[in-house]
Amino acid sequence: MVFGGVLSEKLGVKKKDFTEWFERVLFYSEIIDHRYPLKGVYVWRPFGMKLMKLLMDKMKKLMEKSGHEEAYFPLFSPISIFSKEAEFLKGFSGESLRVTRTGKRKLSEELVVRPTSETIMYYMFSLWIRSWRDLPLKIFQVVPIFRWETKMTKPLLRVREIVFFKEAHTAHETRQEADEQIKEAIKIYTEFFEWLGIPFILLKTPSWDTFAGAEYNYDFVTVLPDGKALELASVINLGQKFAKVFNIEFMDRNEEKRLVWQTCYGISERVLGAVVAIHGDDKGLVLPPDIAPVQVVVVPIPGKGVDEKIKKITSFLEGLRVVIDERDVRPGEKYYHWEAKGVPIRIEVGEKEVKKNFVTLARRDTGEKIKVEDSRIKKEIFRILSEIQKNISEKAKNGFAQFIKTAFSEEEAKKMIEKGGIVKIPWCGKDECGENLQEKLPGEALGFKDDEKPAEPCICGSESTTYLYFARCY
Amino acid sequence: MVFGGVLSEKLGVKKKDFTEWFERVLFYSEIIDHRYPLKGVYVWRPFGMKLMKLLMDKMKKLMEKSGHEEAYFPLFSPISIFSKEAEFLKGFSGESLRVTRTGKRKLSEELVVRPTSETIMYYMFSLWIRSWRDLPLKIFQVVPIFRWETKMTKPLLRVREIVFFKEAHTAHETRQEADEQIKEAIKIYTEFFEWLGIPFILLKTPSWDTFAGAEYNYDFVTVLPDGKALELASVINLGQKFAKVFNIEFMDRNEEKRLVWQTCYGISERVLGAVVAIHGDDKGLVLPPDIAPVQVVVVPIPGKGVDEKIKKITSFLEGLRVVIDERDVRPGEKYYHWEAKGVPIRIEVGEKEVKKNFVTLARRDTGEKIKVEDSRIKKEIFRILSEIQKNISEKAKNGFAQFIKTAFSEEEAKKMIEKGGIVKIPWCGKDECGENLQEKLPGEALGFKDDEKPAEPCICGSESTTYLYFARCY
Repeated sequence: MVFGGVLSEKLGVKKKDFTEWFERVLFYSEIIDHRYPLKGVYVWRPFGMKLMKLLMDKMKKLMEKSGHEEAYFPLFSPISIFSKEAEFLKGFSGESLRVTRTGKRKLSEELVVRPTSETIMYYMFSLWIRSWRDLPLKIFQVVPIFRWETKMTKPLLRVREIVFFKEAHTAHETRQEADEQIKEAIKIYTEFFEWLGIPFILLKTPSWDTFAGAEYNYDFVTVLPDGKALELASVINLGQKFAKVFNIEFMDRNEEKRLVWQTCYGISERVLGAVVAIHGDDKGLVLPPDIAPVQVVVVPIPGKGVDEKIKKITSFLEGLRVVIDERDVRPGEKYYHWEAKGVPIRIEVGEKEVKKNFVTLARRDTGEKIKVEDSRIKKEIFRILSEIQKNISEKAKNGFAQFIKTAFSEEEAKKMIEKGGIVKIPWCGKDECGENLQEKLPGEALGFKDDEKPAEPCICGSESTTYLYFARCY
Repeated sequence: MVFGGVLSEKLGVKKKDFTEWFERVLFYSEIIDHRYPLKGVYVWRPFGMKLMKLLMDKMKKLMEKSGHEEAYFPLFSPISIFSKEAEFLKGFSGESLRVTRTGKRKLSEELVVRPTSETIMYYMFSLWIRSWRDLPLKIFQVVPIFRWETKMTKPLLRVREIVFFKEAHTAHETRQEADEQIKEAIKIYTEFFEWLGIPFILLKTPSWDTFAGAEYNYDFVTVLPDGKALELASVINLGQKFAKVFNIEFMDRNEEKRLVWQTCYGISERVLGAVVAIHGDDKGLVLPPDIAPVQVVVVPIPGKGVDEKIKKITSFLEGLRVVIDERDVRPGEKYYHWEAKGVPIRIEVGEKEVKKNFVTLARRDTGEKIKVEDSRIKKEIFRILSEIQKNISEKAKNGFAQFIKTAFSEEEAKKMIEKGGIVKIPWCGKDECGENLQEKLPGEALGFKDDEKPAEPCICGSESTTYLYFARCY
């Protein structure tokens, strides 16, 4: 099991200094190392890998349960294929990396390093899909993608090598089935984020900001402690735009050739970024027990009978990820170490505990210490783990609720957005009006809900049909 | 569970036409698709992904059990870092891909797409390793690597995007510990290949062909049915060459600064290529049961009581990967389909089986059909699976033994090598003599064993100290 280096110093930054705290926690808890000499590119250390694996394994299970199959598509797209869909090209061309040569010769055709895999996959879809019997096709992959932006980068949240991009791509017989698939994707991501205790709102992206090559898309958006919004996931209805240019046709049930309807949706390590940012505290990580690489750490306070007792206790805890920290450092240092790494429960065992047949449990989320009789350890640990899950989710939800505000004038909206959080404004639903607002207000227009009807009029004076949501974003 | 497309046609190629058979099987069984429009680059279909996952999960377990930890290092190496070790640069520069720009601007420094990760990792090692307490460091990653060779490509065996490169890298206090690590790596790979039933010999690479930047290295080599040798794995002692240029120093137990000693070792999807090539037959894949994505397929022959009986039977088979093929196609087609995909055991259930309380099992490796009473199904299936494993391993071993021959003259060696297989020749151990032989003989000098002493003299007339092994290679 991972110990990583000895974390003898303290974290040294408070969460209220969020920007500094966030980067320091990621490094200190050994999730990533930011010292690789390329801007926006990070090394994932074993502890971070374990975290991402637990997180991604859950996602893969959700994918497979709903009939998605994992595949792998090449990293490189010949420029001729990458360029097929005009809007997509416009959206992704500028910041995509280009391979032009090897160490000794020029390539005959330039290669694009995938910034996302639509063109790469759909070239193959056109070969795979022949008849309605081949549909729906539901494929996903988890791969690194590359977007060489010049903006400020930030580990996990805004990176140039996105290491864990889970992208799902589907093809269907009818428009209606594609719409249904969008709902399934939303359901899957909702379950996923709830499992992680990450609060979110689901917004439909305004038309002027829709994914390059799409009909419409939804974003899952959360807010980090500094009040900036973070897009967690995107769910996109592609219609038939790609089907047309890649000629993805099938023989339908009436023996007629038709184009498929497509969707795609993705998440990345940003999700872990949100987990760290939202649940963490002044001591470091606070992890939902299901993704904690270490769920229970046992710290011996050296004394008579301690080792035997620990042996006995840990035999109760099968099925949990348990570490006994027997290193030759003071218990206090061990506490810091495992608190920084977000371990949900610490068990302390010393002579006192041996004599009186109990253990002392410390909860990572509340800091509370609890004495538990030996006979009840297993039951209590499982109970506390599920209580921690509930507690951190609740806390996150409450924090999030305070970040959502409503404004009824431009002036008010401006102030609110600058203060942080998500600000919604009654909106008539017209593009001109929305784009006009976006121009005048700080931050970005995130989108709107399908089913919200304000009583107040739009700022333009017309009747409003929904709210338009704004925030400063990562 | 994966059905993939309906394989209604037969495989249509016999294994004796190996080259054609091999590519056809990979495509037909839906492991990969070769139609992506980039030479030497392949798409991995869900069935192939499942196979590689089972294979790689075993490897990861072996890695973790022996104290290796998984990490992820960036895809790109700035050219200044890639160029640090002169021999390594010479060995890998020519065929490495270079990113020179984005869609809209030139990069300030050219990036090398990793052909292997020594330079990328060791840059970080120099930051991570401070004291002897940080050693040994044992890290691995499973990532795509890129070697843009101009030679003929071949799926899985000689590709330009190696998708599943498992590379392990270690650092140690002493030369002796690095030597011990080499032994551990050899032990791990030996266990792995034996688990897959792949026969091999382990050879030390001749000095003139040693891995770029290494002190010495070993290769695991097998032979495919066409008589060509395939390198399955490489185990490399790097000495202190990289430690010097990357300045990987540590404070030793006497408080003195010293350079670490390093090793690295890797495998790739070539291993699956060997499994397919060696165990397969005229009907398609034959898979070792442990890596078969489907271990048991149940084919109903429609009739009274069949569905109920199948329900009962499959309830016995928990823990196995079982598919019930209820598609609306003839049983014969289903047989072809699952035989092509290498499923070790097929269970046929029809009215006859219902009436008389038995099932008919068909073994993929031998084609044998076996009637088994209902009450003994579970026991028999597990027995047969382990028998299949044993049988295909034995068969492969016997085939391999016939590929190893000894030659005592240049003329004899030449003929033998041209006929195929591995040919060993008594050798004095001197580089000049070995290189001279390599120049005259077809194929390549693979290496030699540490502990073989021929009675006959070297071809040069001197006393021989070992055999030098030759073969035509992939």
